[in-house]
Amino acid sequence: MADPVFEYALRLADNALVLGHRLSEWSGRSPLLEEDIALSNLALDLIGQARLFYAVAAEAEGAGRNEDRLAYFREAEDFRNVLLVEQPNGDFAHAMVRQFLYAAFMQPFYAALAGSADARFADIAAKAVKEMAYHVRHCGEWVIRLGDGTQESHARAAAALDELWTFTGELFEMDAGERALAATGIAVDRASLKPAWEATVYRVLDEATLDRPADRYMQTGGRDGRHGEHLSRMLAEMQVLARAHPGVTW
Amino acid sequence: MADPVFEYALRLADNALVLGHRLSEWSGRSPLLEEDIALSNLALDLIGQARLFYAVAAEAEGAGRNEDRLAYFREAEDFRNVLLVEQPNGDFAHAMVRQFLYAAFMQPFYAALAGSADARFADIAAKAVKEMAYHVRHCGEWVIRLGDGTQESHARAAAALDELWTFTGELFEMDAGERALAATGIAVDRASLKPAWEATVYRVLDEATLDRPADRYMQTGGRDGRHGEHLSRMLAEMQVLARAHPGVTW
Repeated sequence: MADPVFEYALRLADNALVLGHRLSEWSGRSPLLEEDIALSNLALDLIGQARLFYAVAAEAEGAGRNEDRLAYFREAEDFRNVLLVEQPNGDFAHAMVRQFLYAAFMQPFYAALAGSADARFADIAAKAVKEMAYHVRHCGEWVIRLGDGTQESHARAAAALDELWTFTGELFEMDAGERALAATGIAVDRASLKPAWEATVYRVLDEATLDRPADRYMQTGGRDGRHGEHLSRMLAEMQVLARAHPGVTW
Repeated sequence: MADPVFEYALRLADNALVLGHRLSEWSGRSPLLEEDIALSNLALDLIGQARLFYAVAAEAEGAGRNEDRLAYFREAEDFRNVLLVEQPNGDFAHAMVRQFLYAAFMQPFYAALAGSADARFADIAAKAVKEMAYHVRHCGEWVIRLGDGTQESHARAAAALDELWTFTGELFEMDAGERALAATGIAVDRASLKPAWEATVYRVLDEATLDRPADRYMQTGGRDGRHGEHLSRMLAEMQVLARAHPGVTW
């Protein structure tokens, strides 16, 4: 069985890398120059977080795989990200809603992880929580602007929310390994974050004049490597250059 | 005839925007996570410079076109960038050689422009020169690593240099309008930068064990709007979202 710290670090790294990649796919395709720069900066925050968590995973595994091996030489079924972050890019409203729903969870998550008994997680989280606070603010403002905007922008934001909501349940899932890690004070109790997440999300949805989604069936499986075909396609593109020159040191 | 300050600012903005977009096309496709972040940061430097120069151009034009109108609602033949920066992405060596040749010119260019009689240009240049110094160092190190690396990396760097060299002559071209602007102390005398550019380029090529390219025919025409089809294709992708919602304020 894999080391629980390795598994935990890998999950956090994969979430950040996959969403960071999705955001970077927006580079040079934004509707405004200012927003193009902003989205690139959000992507850089996430890829930076991914690198730090991969380093922890690599150390815990102790098998000689570094961050690049972990990022570029695993197949989709070995990725441990939640399904929310791998959803393919739609329109701009879709990107903002996805980023907002994720950041609204990760901000209190990192705030809690900053108190982790494992100093490596605590240190990364203490920096990352500030970044996620900015993501919440930036993307929350866009959700409000789009939802409380024109008829078309409202319809787009509502459609994105409807499509993505079903992927939010997975953010709160914990398996036995993660619960054991939480019991030792290393991992975060995800269920305890629900009130904070709901408070942030509902405040923004209300201001955006977007209806709160009704309870419904929630998608699951990303943590167990059951991903959509979208992830395989994304990884193929992301990994092609590194794999074309395996072990290259340039 | 267009205002010479407008023309000058537009040239500088277009160079930075087009090369910044080419670099951003690398996002998520690098061979190393660390380099993926580095390339995104180089792209952000350039797009940031573009925004500042577009603001000067917009002010000089006084026709109500803001940075987004200038970036997203002009056709290829209205772009004033040199051909070097629009060359389509090849392999990683190609990206590093292109960026190095450009930055080795822009560093002394901005150093000179920081003394411009127009405070707007001087202010932008004073900040940009530091960014370009970093681009020279970062990409110069890669050119050396690739040129003085394996047989394959050397061959790739040599091929990139051979292909891109023919676009470097245009960096030093000045038309009558720009010469007049230089005579008033606003624009930079490009010819005076040749020794500094050659010193940087030859130092790196020598250390990279790459032959100095022989004198040859130099491509020209970008400043007059005579661009390759590559630029049209790049702009189509870059401008599609902004044009789908013209005048949108979200």
